[in-house]
Amino acid sequence: MANQDEQFKKVISHAKEYGYIFQSSEIYDGLSAIYDYGQNGAELKKNIREYWWKAMVQMHDNIVGIDAAIFMHPTTWKASGHVDAFNDPLIDNKDSKKRYRADVLVEDYVAKIEAKIDKEVAKAAKRFGDAFDKEQFVATNPRVVKYQEECSAILKRLGQSLEKEDLADVKALIEELGIADPDTGSKNWTDVKQFNLMFGTKLGASAESATDLYLRPETAQGIFVNFLNVQKTGRMKIPFGIAQTGKAFRNEIIARQFIFRMREFEQMEMQFFIKPGTQQEWYDYWKKTRLKWHLSLGLGTDNYRFHDHEKLAHYADAAADIEFKFPFGFKELEGIHSRTDFDLNQHEQFSGKKLQYFDPEESKSYVPYVLETSIGLDRMFLAVFSNSLMEEDLGDGKTRTVLKLPAVLAPTKAAILPLIKRDGLPELSQKIMNELKWDFNVTYDEKDAVGRRYRRQDAAGTPYCITVDHQSLEDNTVTIRHRDSMEQERVAIDDLRSLILKEVDVRYWLQKMNDL
Amino acid sequence: MANQDEQFKKVISHAKEYGYIFQSSEIYDGLSAIYDYGQNGAELKKNIREYWWKAMVQMHDNIVGIDAAIFMHPTTWKASGHVDAFNDPLIDNKDSKKRYRADVLVEDYVAKIEAKIDKEVAKAAKRFGDAFDKEQFVATNPRVVKYQEECSAILKRLGQSLEKEDLADVKALIEELGIADPDTGSKNWTDVKQFNLMFGTKLGASAESATDLYLRPETAQGIFVNFLNVQKTGRMKIPFGIAQTGKAFRNEIIARQFIFRMREFEQMEMQFFIKPGTQQEWYDYWKKTRLKWHLSLGLGTDNYRFHDHEKLAHYADAAADIEFKFPFGFKELEGIHSRTDFDLNQHEQFSGKKLQYFDPEESKSYVPYVLETSIGLDRMFLAVFSNSLMEEDLGDGKTRTVLKLPAVLAPTKAAILPLIKRDGLPELSQKIMNELKWDFNVTYDEKDAVGRRYRRQDAAGTPYCITVDHQSLEDNTVTIRHRDSMEQERVAIDDLRSLILKEVDVRYWLQKMNDL
Repeated sequence: MANQDEQFKKVISHAKEYGYIFQSSEIYDGLSAIYDYGQNGAELKKNIREYWWKAMVQMHDNIVGIDAAIFMHPTTWKASGHVDAFNDPLIDNKDSKKRYRADVLVEDYVAKIEAKIDKEVAKAAKRFGDAFDKEQFVATNPRVVKYQEECSAILKRLGQSLEKEDLADVKALIEELGIADPDTGSKNWTDVKQFNLMFGTKLGASAESATDLYLRPETAQGIFVNFLNVQKTGRMKIPFGIAQTGKAFRNEIIARQFIFRMREFEQMEMQFFIKPGTQQEWYDYWKKTRLKWHLSLGLGTDNYRFHDHEKLAHYADAAADIEFKFPFGFKELEGIHSRTDFDLNQHEQFSGKKLQYFDPEESKSYVPYVLETSIGLDRMFLAVFSNSLMEEDLGDGKTRTVLKLPAVLAPTKAAILPLIKRDGLPELSQKIMNELKWDFNVTYDEKDAVGRRYRRQDAAGTPYCITVDHQSLEDNTVTIRHRDSMEQERVAIDDLRSLILKEVDVRYWLQKMNDL
Repeated sequence: MANQDEQFKKVISHAKEYGYIFQSSEIYDGLSAIYDYGQNGAELKKNIREYWWKAMVQMHDNIVGIDAAIFMHPTTWKASGHVDAFNDPLIDNKDSKKRYRADVLVEDYVAKIEAKIDKEVAKAAKRFGDAFDKEQFVATNPRVVKYQEECSAILKRLGQSLEKEDLADVKALIEELGIADPDTGSKNWTDVKQFNLMFGTKLGASAESATDLYLRPETAQGIFVNFLNVQKTGRMKIPFGIAQTGKAFRNEIIARQFIFRMREFEQMEMQFFIKPGTQQEWYDYWKKTRLKWHLSLGLGTDNYRFHDHEKLAHYADAAADIEFKFPFGFKELEGIHSRTDFDLNQHEQFSGKKLQYFDPEESKSYVPYVLETSIGLDRMFLAVFSNSLMEEDLGDGKTRTVLKLPAVLAPTKAAILPLIKRDGLPELSQKIMNELKWDFNVTYDEKDAVGRRYRRQDAAGTPYCITVDHQSLEDNTVTIRHRDSMEQERVAIDDLRSLILKEVDVRYWLQKMNDL
């Protein structure tokens, strides 16, 4: 755990140091759970988005993309269920006037008991040394067993109360456990109330005529309300998909874990409209297809696992997460949901408009079923970034920090480095840059010894360094160094473009995905 | 004027019919001045954004991009002046309870007088026939001269009152002119009040702890607050630029003209940080450079003009618009502003942090000056779309509707059309698609006669149609048809990719821009 924390801290500080992620409005001391992407982060994020879009839209004849506004008609969110059911249970402390998520207070209480278990385990491990059998100890030590039973009883009761929306029992639980305000120690609590997570705003100026709007908490509804417009003007035939990327907003009370859970974030969603009854087949297809997309990036097969939901949302008849091994453990990265006709039905009902598809093969109209794939772009960023960052032992007590981003996603593809700052080497470097910049991002660096510049580009994630030396002036060759292997080879300047493109061009990665 | 209106209506209905732009949340009867981009619109918008980004960031060694959050610390907007000065003057009618922009009420009054002038001119033109000299008539006809004087007196007084923030005089003017509520005729007005155009929302849950936030009304401030983070982590040397694209929001009271003025819109801005004293040189450079970008798209040199501002915003020492000839006349498309050190100074003052650059050549620190280029992505979309849409006379009383989008921006680059739906032609078409789709968007269409399919692709803006016929099965050639010239040629299937890429690949367009 300590190790995980430390690795995560490294990720966060590296992200800042190399221009990937800054705290939002940092000069004003930031906003909680909101981040800005810096010069390298903006490119990495853009490249992930583009790789998703090409795989989803460009490569599929029957998937098109849209770009719906963040502002939607407020009835959308009644139909989707967000007005009534998109809530967190909150509790106020009457003395401190501070507000907390009631479920998090209970979970933090449980976490403290779990910490005691860890402590017992650590003590025993020290006592028994090599002979220590952790599994057996945890299963048999009376104190540990008692702690575990306590934890699971509390979590079970919390889960049941939340599911039944029995908020009085959540409060009773807090009081029975003697949970105090973490800031002040006061146990003087209000009742637990539901708090809606949507951000509100007002459209229009006058008190009488202003419309209460929400910032969309998900992009999916922008696809549902446009379903017929796209199907008709695009002459789409079922099965077909509509994809979209864009910002969504959730007023999380306790937002943490860096860019894993933010109040402003970006989604990449695709709704696939199908004939009712075919949902199992498409559920399997999209689970497989989306996993392939992830695997094509080469972050390691072992870092992914499926988690099939046993408890389903009211609109779903099957749901699975693709989980990724983040620095803080396996967590949801993408969801694949069989949503039935729930959403289109709701919008039919609330709008009074028919949202049906006439199936020419069946000669009848029906409300299509929907298979959804939904991934957080920022989470994907964190997955790629945290997985790529490593300290490598180079022997002789030397190490290097290297960001082994998949070359297709790297912000800058090549750095051009004149060996020294004179004799025409900067000019030739500039000439090479001017030839390569038409195809991809390149950068120039002439400061410090070349070894130090290599390290800097390693840490920034640049896949190639091109060193221009005196020989270059004579025979038009340069040294190209590969970030991951650190191998160097002498190549003709004229071959640089195709050599680099072969590794960074999105086409080759899509081909790899296709071949999986 | 009637002609312009009609052309504009065609643009709007074509945009909907071909999946470019839908009214937002249309099934719920829409939201005023907010639009969704459909399957073709999303691609066109994306391609414009990408063309801007590549020209700005990829092609310039000294410009990097960022992606700052929409939510910013609220003090940002005090520093920028938006809290105090980003207002519209509003007036309520006490009887109807309706709210209006006071300046627009006055302008509408003036527009009515101008309509009278037009009427006089039309009458005289009819009376004098070929002998009519409009200029002379307007300058000498006593009635017209009186109207003109009236108009200019009203507009002058309105301008002065607004500048002095003398809102009482704006109300007095409305009363003196006898302006009535356009809906009800009532002249029972409240005082004029300033209304801030920023959308507000609340971050966090409790009444005591929630932070009042604004949705950013411009993306520029996200660049200013990150200036030092980018400069330091990116080791940038002045002059250098930071570019950004993203959503911004303005609660316009009267929003109209389709996607020209929206409440939710997207900006593409670049702030170029320079040494104080060099602003004139960079102002000229960016005016020239940005115009080249526009001209490279081939929408017609005559459709652009510069409008140099005489009255400058408080932060600017020079400003010009690139105006474009929209269906409703020449209007601002892009702004180029010399902003001095106003913004960084303000943020220094409000944040208490130094926002200075140490210039190694001068061996001293200073607050850089800023040269800004700012373009509305949606406006650019409208410029491209409306300019490309035309009715072409084909002789023999035939016409065609064609959307002559620049090929680099077209949503779909090629349509693959089997001449008939059997004999293996659909299979060969599919095979061609599967080869081309790695490089760009392609579509397939087998319905209706091929002539009709050509017309459909013309109207959708697809630059190439590829027709697969029986000969294709024998000699691996197809017919390729060019959207603009309607010329057809027989080419080898193996040559299709390079033939199309040569026209649609962004590299060739950037090269064209560079050569201007």
